[in-house]
Amino acid sequence: MTAREAAAGSTDERPSTGSRLLSRRDVAFLLYEWLDVGRLADRSQYRGHSRETFDDVLALYEAIAADHFAGHNRKGDAFEPSVHGGRVRLIPEVAGALAAYTSAGLLACQVGGPPRPRELPYVIAQAGFAWVQAANIASAAYLLLTAANANLILAHGSPAQVERYVPALESGRWFGTMCLSEPHAGSSLGDLTTRAEPQVDGTYRVFGDKCWISAGDHELTDNIVHLVLARVPGAAPGVKGLSLFIVPKVVVGLDGQLHGPNDVTLVGLIHKMGYRGATNTLLNFGGGRVEPGGKPGAVGELVGEEGRGLAYMFSMMNEARICVGAGAAALGYTGYLKSLEYARTRIQGRRAQEKDPAGPPVPIIEHPDVRAMLLAQKAYVEGALALVLYGALLADERDTNPDPRTRRRAGLLLDVLTPIVKSWPSQWCLRANSLAIQVHGGSGYARDYDVEQHYRDNRLNAIHEGTHGIQALDLLGRKMTMAHGAGFDALCDAIQGTCKRAVAAGGEMARFGAELWAVLGELGEVTRTVAAAGDKEVALANATVYLEVSGHVVVGWMWLEQMLVAGDRPGAFYAGKRQAARYFFTRELPTVGPQLQVLRAMDRLALDMRREWF
Amino acid sequence: MTAREAAAGSTDERPSTGSRLLSRRDVAFLLYEWLDVGRLADRSQYRGHSRETFDDVLALYEAIAADHFAGHNRKGDAFEPSVHGGRVRLIPEVAGALAAYTSAGLLACQVGGPPRPRELPYVIAQAGFAWVQAANIASAAYLLLTAANANLILAHGSPAQVERYVPALESGRWFGTMCLSEPHAGSSLGDLTTRAEPQVDGTYRVFGDKCWISAGDHELTDNIVHLVLARVPGAAPGVKGLSLFIVPKVVVGLDGQLHGPNDVTLVGLIHKMGYRGATNTLLNFGGGRVEPGGKPGAVGELVGEEGRGLAYMFSMMNEARICVGAGAAALGYTGYLKSLEYARTRIQGRRAQEKDPAGPPVPIIEHPDVRAMLLAQKAYVEGALALVLYGALLADERDTNPDPRTRRRAGLLLDVLTPIVKSWPSQWCLRANSLAIQVHGGSGYARDYDVEQHYRDNRLNAIHEGTHGIQALDLLGRKMTMAHGAGFDALCDAIQGTCKRAVAAGGEMARFGAELWAVLGELGEVTRTVAAAGDKEVALANATVYLEVSGHVVVGWMWLEQMLVAGDRPGAFYAGKRQAARYFFTRELPTVGPQLQVLRAMDRLALDMRREWF
Repeated sequence: MTAREAAAGSTDERPSTGSRLLSRRDVAFLLYEWLDVGRLADRSQYRGHSRETFDDVLALYEAIAADHFAGHNRKGDAFEPSVHGGRVRLIPEVAGALAAYTSAGLLACQVGGPPRPRELPYVIAQAGFAWVQAANIASAAYLLLTAANANLILAHGSPAQVERYVPALESGRWFGTMCLSEPHAGSSLGDLTTRAEPQVDGTYRVFGDKCWISAGDHELTDNIVHLVLARVPGAAPGVKGLSLFIVPKVVVGLDGQLHGPNDVTLVGLIHKMGYRGATNTLLNFGGGRVEPGGKPGAVGELVGEEGRGLAYMFSMMNEARICVGAGAAALGYTGYLKSLEYARTRIQGRRAQEKDPAGPPVPIIEHPDVRAMLLAQKAYVEGALALVLYGALLADERDTNPDPRTRRRAGLLLDVLTPIVKSWPSQWCLRANSLAIQVHGGSGYARDYDVEQHYRDNRLNAIHEGTHGIQALDLLGRKMTMAHGAGFDALCDAIQGTCKRAVAAGGEMARFGAELWAVLGELGEVTRTVAAAGDKEVALANATVYLEVSGHVVVGWMWLEQMLVAGDRPGAFYAGKRQAARYFFTRELPTVGPQLQVLRAMDRLALDMRREWF
Repeated sequence: MTAREAAAGSTDERPSTGSRLLSRRDVAFLLYEWLDVGRLADRSQYRGHSRETFDDVLALYEAIAADHFAGHNRKGDAFEPSVHGGRVRLIPEVAGALAAYTSAGLLACQVGGPPRPRELPYVIAQAGFAWVQAANIASAAYLLLTAANANLILAHGSPAQVERYVPALESGRWFGTMCLSEPHAGSSLGDLTTRAEPQVDGTYRVFGDKCWISAGDHELTDNIVHLVLARVPGAAPGVKGLSLFIVPKVVVGLDGQLHGPNDVTLVGLIHKMGYRGATNTLLNFGGGRVEPGGKPGAVGELVGEEGRGLAYMFSMMNEARICVGAGAAALGYTGYLKSLEYARTRIQGRRAQEKDPAGPPVPIIEHPDVRAMLLAQKAYVEGALALVLYGALLADERDTNPDPRTRRRAGLLLDVLTPIVKSWPSQWCLRANSLAIQVHGGSGYARDYDVEQHYRDNRLNAIHEGTHGIQALDLLGRKMTMAHGAGFDALCDAIQGTCKRAVAAGGEMARFGAELWAVLGELGEVTRTVAAAGDKEVALANATVYLEVSGHVVVGWMWLEQMLVAGDRPGAFYAGKRQAARYFFTRELPTVGPQLQVLRAMDRLALDMRREWF
């Protein structure tokens, strides 16, 4: 069954859990009123699609998220994966949910891209998947990794590899992983030591330990396709010596059939603060016992060329980073909606002007401090979702826009924005989750409510797929200067275009447009200062501040865009959008002032702090 | 055995865990070089004490923290309290640790104050207890509540109540609780409905449900002394109608002997995100089955006068709030030290100027971003510990300074500072714990390391004993205006005194002094604006921002004080203090600028946000 067929059979009436995952109204606003994604249906790749088919698929994602994923979110957290007799045991609901998802054809919707057209625009698939992430980020991880894995093989594998692996992955018969980190090397990929020895038949034998491997072992599928970074003998040191290998848990014959088990051993599970439902493993490749006369090592196949492994992996990583940002936004969003519902129904205390202590108590949303916490959450989570969907649309534009200049510009913009799409939601939607706890008071700290789990789950997002600090190095050390600053220029052009429209619109919009224009100008100055700085270390010492300033500028832009769409349209929804935009411009954007000062001064405090002074 | 006797028998050689709880060097700096607490030994109440005896007791706290509390911190989290046959089961290490603590006489050190002199200055006891909080905040909770409970009875109970309860509490034979919240009323204490019916023999019978009761049930002690807020028949509505009752789990006769069980029933345990080792309960009073001919209700004794319950409870709450701030600081501190150790020993990556990918990798403390995260943590946790100890010393001054004017001034200052002592560490040492996770990378998110637990544990501190928002209302709505602003004036005087000394010292200290002076002036202006504002709601809508600005001003002051003490003394320790102070003044204090702007404008965004706009 394809997703479209499945969607046609689904109904628009959702159970009530759906309404506390994301806001259907907001998703429609972002996709159609703002991003105008309906126009993608005109592109040759998506012929036969229309807003109706997009909506049907989105409704299907939402239904599956609400019906199959949300229900076991807390249970998956309470009963985390465990090992019995060397086999990983999960709660049974995980398999059921994943089967519902894949059999509806939704995993296949996330696979594609040049050279093979996607079945569905990337932005629609990302929006749909966000429902699932909001419902159960841990179970969603299996899907995210498998889609990214299939996309990598599709983009860089040989036709034979594509044929042998991709259909099994996109149908959910097999799942996939990405294996980068080793116990001694996480962020420092240049130090990976897993080795791959070429064999006479063209295959390789792989030896080494890999850690933090999400979905690294389970019995959900017949096979697990590991994508492993390793070095061939004589490879250059550093990242240039890395090659990429497909190393399946069960060896796959040339005919695509499953042969015997490969030498991939589960060394142990890692127990985490959150994201507990997703297996996280330490794996050994090639260290198993060898039968007499047998050959040691895990059987692997090279993807593409030797020495290009990291570049290939990065195509997967970049996609994964957008998904991480989307997951962070989704967790923030569902926490916001749950705390909003709590604030509307929890009756306690009186308004300040009520003098009678026996007067009727009010829902806590009436208390200004609670409303301030809800408004902050709204500004964070709706800003983050806008950013994520904007980024996803850029991927569609890069891959399918008929105009080559627009394609190139979209690609540049997405390159620049990827570290921000990953890091901003990870930082600020975690903050939203903390506020969601605070709105609940003591109940928010109790495991009877969902929000504490969202907070624990979301804390991972600033760590995995490249830490916050790594994103900062990527943005400042690579993205802002790439192609002689063409990416940064494209970003400035886009933001300035919005500012100009805002100024032309007049009123408070004009004021916000002028403010954003001014802050962008300061960011530009700082960027030039950094680029010109002789001391690379002092620039890098301030990279995180730079990332955070850039993030606030970009999300300010996202809010100005939303405010322009809302205009002076009547109704509560648009009034809420305007108020959240005002909040961002009044309370959030000004916080970059002191940070810009730190950047202008090229602050040396951390650099000059000697290790013995701590 | 008294604490002093126990201390005399202890040794100064600590196992290595001790060194990752707090810094002995920093505690000594704060207590002696800065606060000069040695002078307290001259006061009549502490005759016989000296710096040596203080040091001996501090070493004893540290030893017991390291030897008895740190070891089961993670186990207490993994195996949280559970109920079997109506009885609460804890891991056995909790009882052992608490017995070690109480039998060394340390609990008794935390009990006292007017009218009965303390055995030890409050600031010393607080510093000592911080070692225990750093080691195991959950197990420490039993002690904190028991000491506060005993102190309340000491201050407000009848001589007979003092005689019957305090010795059992301070020796650790019985433990205590505070019972405020009810399922329908947490922050809104005016709505409590638990009732207390007077009996002919002068006792009361208590009926109602109480929730979030930490240490509410266990078998660690023969008895549990609950202090319960309830209303007598005909009491006024609101908080003025609340009275305070001693309601022990086991009825205590007039002779102090244990009689039969009281009608206090464990309804259930609350399972939390952190602080898991501490039992948190829902209790019912007076709803149990009554024997034929028996009388319903839980037997209670009135403390002090009817209708004064909340005032009495607040003397306990204020002490508990300082302890919460201390606990938050302690959790931040131990997380900082653990991430510092990790950063010094974890080898990964190369310095930016190293071009050779095969060059030797370095400890991650060499990476500027890691060092920046450590420096931020140092600024937060050492600033927070300074604030907590300063607040504790104010309690000593209020209670024991020979000069009545100084006593009064210390009392005013402590009143104003209490919401900040509680809230600032809860906010910023949680941030420190998040950075400690980030320094560890993926390991920080794994439960094999301590830092994720500290982060979970610390998240409670902005909630219990009055939420962050409640502290803000207390500061802005009560403390800043009490006694015609005398508390705020005392605070300004104190801060300005430090600024003047800094300006006189010249150099960068003069610059920081002038900056703090200027920000304080702006805070003063805003405070006057708020006080003069006709619309109380708009002021309260900005109370949290006001609390956070005030907190940063106060901690800036704490750092300026420390910098003045460090002066230009040689050595790594003082260099580190100076650098952390610079960090606070360069990176943290300027962040109040945009917040002051919000306050000046008396921002109405949250207030004007209608509930249907969300």
